[in-house]
Amino acid sequence: MTRKIKVAAAQVGAVHRNAIKQDTVHRLINLLSSAAEKKVQLVVFPECTLTTFFPRHLFETQEELDKYFEHGADIAQSSDVKPLFDEAKRLTIDIVLGYAERTPEGTGYNTSVYFSAAAGEVIGKYRKVHLPGRVEPFEDPEATNQLEKRYFTPGDLGFPAFRASGLVDDAVKKATAKEGESTVGRGDPIFGMLICNDRRWPEAWRTYSLQGAELLMFGYNTGGNMSHLWGSKPMSPEQARAEALFHSKLVQTANSYMNACFSISAARCGLDDGKYDLIGGSAICSPEGHVVAEAETDEDELVVAEIDLAECRQGKEKTFDYARHRRIETYGLIGKQTGVVEPDLL
Amino acid sequence: MTRKIKVAAAQVGAVHRNAIKQDTVHRLINLLSSAAEKKVQLVVFPECTLTTFFPRHLFETQEELDKYFEHGADIAQSSDVKPLFDEAKRLTIDIVLGYAERTPEGTGYNTSVYFSAAAGEVIGKYRKVHLPGRVEPFEDPEATNQLEKRYFTPGDLGFPAFRASGLVDDAVKKATAKEGESTVGRGDPIFGMLICNDRRWPEAWRTYSLQGAELLMFGYNTGGNMSHLWGSKPMSPEQARAEALFHSKLVQTANSYMNACFSISAARCGLDDGKYDLIGGSAICSPEGHVVAEAETDEDELVVAEIDLAECRQGKEKTFDYARHRRIETYGLIGKQTGVVEPDLL
Repeated sequence: MTRKIKVAAAQVGAVHRNAIKQDTVHRLINLLSSAAEKKVQLVVFPECTLTTFFPRHLFETQEELDKYFEHGADIAQSSDVKPLFDEAKRLTIDIVLGYAERTPEGTGYNTSVYFSAAAGEVIGKYRKVHLPGRVEPFEDPEATNQLEKRYFTPGDLGFPAFRASGLVDDAVKKATAKEGESTVGRGDPIFGMLICNDRRWPEAWRTYSLQGAELLMFGYNTGGNMSHLWGSKPMSPEQARAEALFHSKLVQTANSYMNACFSISAARCGLDDGKYDLIGGSAICSPEGHVVAEAETDEDELVVAEIDLAECRQGKEKTFDYARHRRIETYGLIGKQTGVVEPDLL
Repeated sequence: MTRKIKVAAAQVGAVHRNAIKQDTVHRLINLLSSAAEKKVQLVVFPECTLTTFFPRHLFETQEELDKYFEHGADIAQSSDVKPLFDEAKRLTIDIVLGYAERTPEGTGYNTSVYFSAAAGEVIGKYRKVHLPGRVEPFEDPEATNQLEKRYFTPGDLGFPAFRASGLVDDAVKKATAKEGESTVGRGDPIFGMLICNDRRWPEAWRTYSLQGAELLMFGYNTGGNMSHLWGSKPMSPEQARAEALFHSKLVQTANSYMNACFSISAARCGLDDGKYDLIGGSAICSPEGHVVAEAETDEDELVVAEIDLAECRQGKEKTFDYARHRRIETYGLIGKQTGVVEPDLL
């Protein structure tokens, strides 16, 4: 039985440091309107969608930094952003939105929420676990900083898979597997969220697929010209950009395959402030590891595909039937040891 | 400082059911001779190199089955195979060899050993953890069986990384990192072995890279025409074969990148008995996820590359610096839960 839904990655081009948030939200609403015209049911927006990618800047004061964060317990009720959620509800489109979250207690997280149009509220929340970058800025004033470890605390919600209602037909929802057979594909679809660098960490994908995730969604801000990362193999800015795109697609396709799930990635891209280059490459990927739709620009762009979640069954019931094939008695190190411990020197 | 070694995948074409083992070993020795001419220091042979891929057959008697297994505690001393190890030692080439192992206690494992020419003996052993296939044969007499779960016991050695001496110059070995700096790249190189289906399981790669592995090596027997796996998306035999090759390369390149290590894969390939199609695609892959050399045939073929293990440093010290970035408090499910546990139905 098919379980089709129409989904989109809403890629977002340059957002400058001095951009006005209402203007940016207006761009997102325009993307949502395009989605509605195409009968899209679910739209994924990027990481930290509402502002420029501010962790590249060192701020002198907390007040200056806090302009880039959303405050208040419910993002869907935040005055600047509420119009986007209201429009999503009106158009009956679920959305994933990434933003910088400042909790009432003052903690900063790199966060993503899932807003269900059917429920009329946020039903899923994820806080980025794998924060890249550094706490301290580079000494080289020419280097572009990546201060996520300074501005954010690692996520405290784990990798929480959840079901979303209103997307799959009732007839399909009611279909249940026969007793003793696999339960894959029963009921409302199972989703999970990642953010940017998380996509390079197989532990994150695996923890979701152990909960049966059929679709993982993530936004990203990935530099296309990170000269400080060129390291052992010097390359031109063009080569470095192509390499960043290659790695981004490689980890999305391979992890989708190894976890037998669809994935949607949405890039913040383009030249922020006319000089900070971010790669595009927003893509929708199948559980067999194929890109089924991808961005053609580095600007605001809707990448649309109809996906059939039933296609996850092949992987989940055969090659990646975890219950039959996983050997957890050999995986102990993964959850016990953070860094590398090498064998003794000979 | 560079840490270069010259390595090869020794791809092995068709081995029929009635092949004589001495003849097969002679083919392997020929590949070793080619390697010596090219000054190769390390050759990786496929999974179950010494016979046809026998788990596709159901055997009536234990005696018939046992012809495909190696008996005795030390494969390097087994009369049929000793000439290969003797030649490796004479040519100063390390080898990885996959074979079916019957222990003195009678247990069957799908095994791979690492023979060090410098040591003159087997210094590493791995037993395949992720056995694919089934215990019972298919009812459909036309289907090709995959009876690894019937003939083998899951490996009991975990994923044991080890160092191999004699490959990297003494001058390089003596170089040590400054106090407080990363120890990546000190001393003899750190290796690990996988076998076939293991390459699709990120847990296996990660457990090795947590031990600092710089190079993972594996052989495989992968069907190019597994009609019983076509499942939800029917495809032609040609499409199924292309898909099998695509997945094989996808998991090798992505896992090499995400674990910042080189990898060498060696295929048993060709048409066994003129009808059982196995994919080729033996490849050497860099820690940035690029194929640096790959097979061009589906026959006996040596795939050679000079690799510089120092190229692992970029990944291990930056994007995949585990000590700084991994968050083991969120990975608990991976080692605790074997199968999928879905969120409650709404």
